[in-house]
Amino acid sequence: MPNYNYKTGLAGIRAFAFDVDGVLTDGSLLSTPDGELLRVFNSKDGLAIRMCRMHGYPVAIITGGASDSILQRCAGMGIPDEDIYMASRDKLPVFDSFCRKYGLDRKEVAYCGDDIPDIPVLRSCGIAAVPADAAQEAKEASDYISSYPGGKGCVRDLVEQVLKIQGKWYIDYEKYRKL
Amino acid sequence: MPNYNYKTGLAGIRAFAFDVDGVLTDGSLLSTPDGELLRVFNSKDGLAIRMCRMHGYPVAIITGGASDSILQRCAGMGIPDEDIYMASRDKLPVFDSFCRKYGLDRKEVAYCGDDIPDIPVLRSCGIAAVPADAAQEAKEASDYISSYPGGKGCVRDLVEQVLKIQGKWYIDYEKYRKL
Amino acid sequence: MPNYNYKTGLAGIRAFAFDVDGVLTDGSLLSTPDGELLRVFNSKDGLAIRMCRMHGYPVAIITGGASDSILQRCAGMGIPDEDIYMASRDKLPVFDSFCRKYGLDRKEVAYCGDDIPDIPVLRSCGIAAVPADAAQEAKEASDYISSYPGGKGCVRDLVEQVLKIQGKWYIDYEKYRKL
Amino acid sequence: MPNYNYKTGLAGIRAFAFDVDGVLTDGSLLSTPDGELLRVFNSKDGLAIRMCRMHGYPVAIITGGASDSILQRCAGMGIPDEDIYMASRDKLPVFDSFCRKYGLDRKEVAYCGDDIPDIPVLRSCGIAAVPADAAQEAKEASDYISSYPGGKGCVRDLVEQVLKIQGKWYIDYEKYRKL
Repeated sequence: MPNYNYKTGLAGIRAFAFDVDGVLTDGSLLSTPDGELLRVFNSKDGLAIRMCRMHGYPVAIITGGASDSILQRCAGMGIPDEDIYMASRDKLPVFDSFCRKYGLDRKEVAYCGDDIPDIPVLRSCGIAAVPADAAQEAKEASDYISSYPGGKGCVRDLVEQVLKIQGKWYIDYEKYRKL
Repeated sequence: MPNYNYKTGLAGIRAFAFDVDGVLTDGSLLSTPDGELLRVFNSKDGLAIRMCRMHGYPVAIITGGASDSILQRCAGMGIPDEDIYMASRDKLPVFDSFCRKYGLDRKEVAYCGDDIPDIPVLRSCGIAAVPADAAQEAKEASDYISSYPGGKGCVRDLVEQVLKIQGKWYIDYEKYRKL
Repeated sequence: MPNYNYKTGLAGIRAFAFDVDGVLTDGSLLSTPDGELLRVFNSKDGLAIRMCRMHGYPVAIITGGASDSILQRCAGMGIPDEDIYMASRDKLPVFDSFCRKYGLDRKEVAYCGDDIPDIPVLRSCGIAAVPADAAQEAKEASDYISSYPGGKGCVRDLVEQVLKIQGKWYIDYEKYRKL
Repeated sequence: MPNYNYKTGLAGIRAFAFDVDGVLTDGSLLSTPDGELLRVFNSKDGLAIRMCRMHGYPVAIITGGASDSILQRCAGMGIPDEDIYMASRDKLPVFDSFCRKYGLDRKEVAYCGDDIPDIPVLRSCGIAAVPADAAQEAKEASDYISSYPGGKGCVRDLVEQVLKIQGKWYIDYEKYRKL
């Protein structure tokens, strides 16, 4: 599945961006009577994102959704509020803002998305990853199809590959204590 | 599984109607102490329903359930409140009201239901779809058994087939931004 | 699996009793900050229990748990409050109270439980059913092991067998409208 | 999988310690708008922990998480508040405090954890168990890999083995009534 320069791609990654529904979650949306949609995140993905932040990688969230519960969870994993882009209908311009902010080339960012609105970013980023249960069209636009479905470790899988190849797949306890 | 005129049926669909429990959800009902039942919807189904609305297809919700959380979620996918029929015990007269409202023949509507109360509508509509985990009796009344279970993409599967055959399986970003 | 007089047993059933955790649910307990434990029920089980009530079968809930959300959901399926026995540590005396109340012989009641505290009732009732994922000890005390796990249709499976053999597996719409 | 002295290890266990996310839960974290993370526990694990407490085994919870809902659920299973160690980033010193409190040798405690922060304790305790879906590094540091995933019975599996070998796998109804 990985294309010929997949490993080179992993080595050149300096930042990550993630969709929420179907990627950091399994796509479940718990509807409450007051109109809030609650999401279910995954603890192993959470450690992976904290590991990115510990080692200084910028991490963006780019989602069509918008809810305080997304903001709360992502902040809890060490992502700065200003890198959580909610209500993003056109994802590519948002992705480009994130790249500009951190002086990143598109090819230096690994992105994981699962559905049609993610395709423009999947086609432009450095490593385009999708969960095992992504929409067919998203799979076709990807470099890597994780064997883990959304919300069940696909983000962990991608982060682990990048950090391992870069020698950063370990907990810096000094920083971990403060997260 | 599909009967001989299944593809012709898909081409003639002008509207959709969906049951909630076991179709837009996996049948899970989270009971709260104040008597509310919360449901878990699916983000990929959500995009499919928004795609229907973007391209002008009427969409009805016909459910025995009744809760603000159903109303909130369905409104959030672009379904007008008056097309969300809750507390529907006899579903066929409700289905017929929806058809009359939009000047639709029963055969122009695709319906997805999963259990015994859905059978009268499954037997009358244009395309009768059921999720992979539908009750046996509902399966027997169907034209199409999705390979996806309730709440895990059966609605997406049905919508995708209709919209693809009609050349409408794409995001109209102008309208998507406003949804 | 079913013992030699299993079918005779089904025909003689006049009432049902169910455990909650691991039977009407998959055993999940959503803990909230104020100490409430929320449970996830299943819509297909719900229809089966309503069908029992429609046709006049007494239904008891016998659970070690105790929460308003159990009460709310079970009442919503048409079970009278006084037949919902919560905080039941010793289940057999509770089961016997239910039998006495409705003038039932133990052998006229089908029971579904999944764990060690259910064993005394499983050994005494008419049809002892367990979900596919019951504890080994509960399976050994059962007459019937459903192919459905807890919260995923094991109650529906049991009810359907009894009501079908007794010619009651249909919706009485007159009564259904009032449930 | 079990190493050569695994059975001897089981016989010598006098206490238990458990991680929460991915062990007592499947790793799901339900994010609420006010920043609370809710967890989903399992009723069969719950009975196992109550059985430990009934028979006098100390049980500790050692988790990086911190929330009233963890506290509430663990207290509900009979674990004293002071043995629930939340916000534990360095788990080994916490584990050692628990051992000291009850005069236990590290080798007398069975521990179940699933991820990188659990490794120091997995390497030091008497029986190091991991769920079927533990992180690879945690599996490598374990004595026993349960066939049950986190939140789906891995704790029950471990407790059952210890209590069975020690003749304590039964409900003491006198004490159970008071739990």
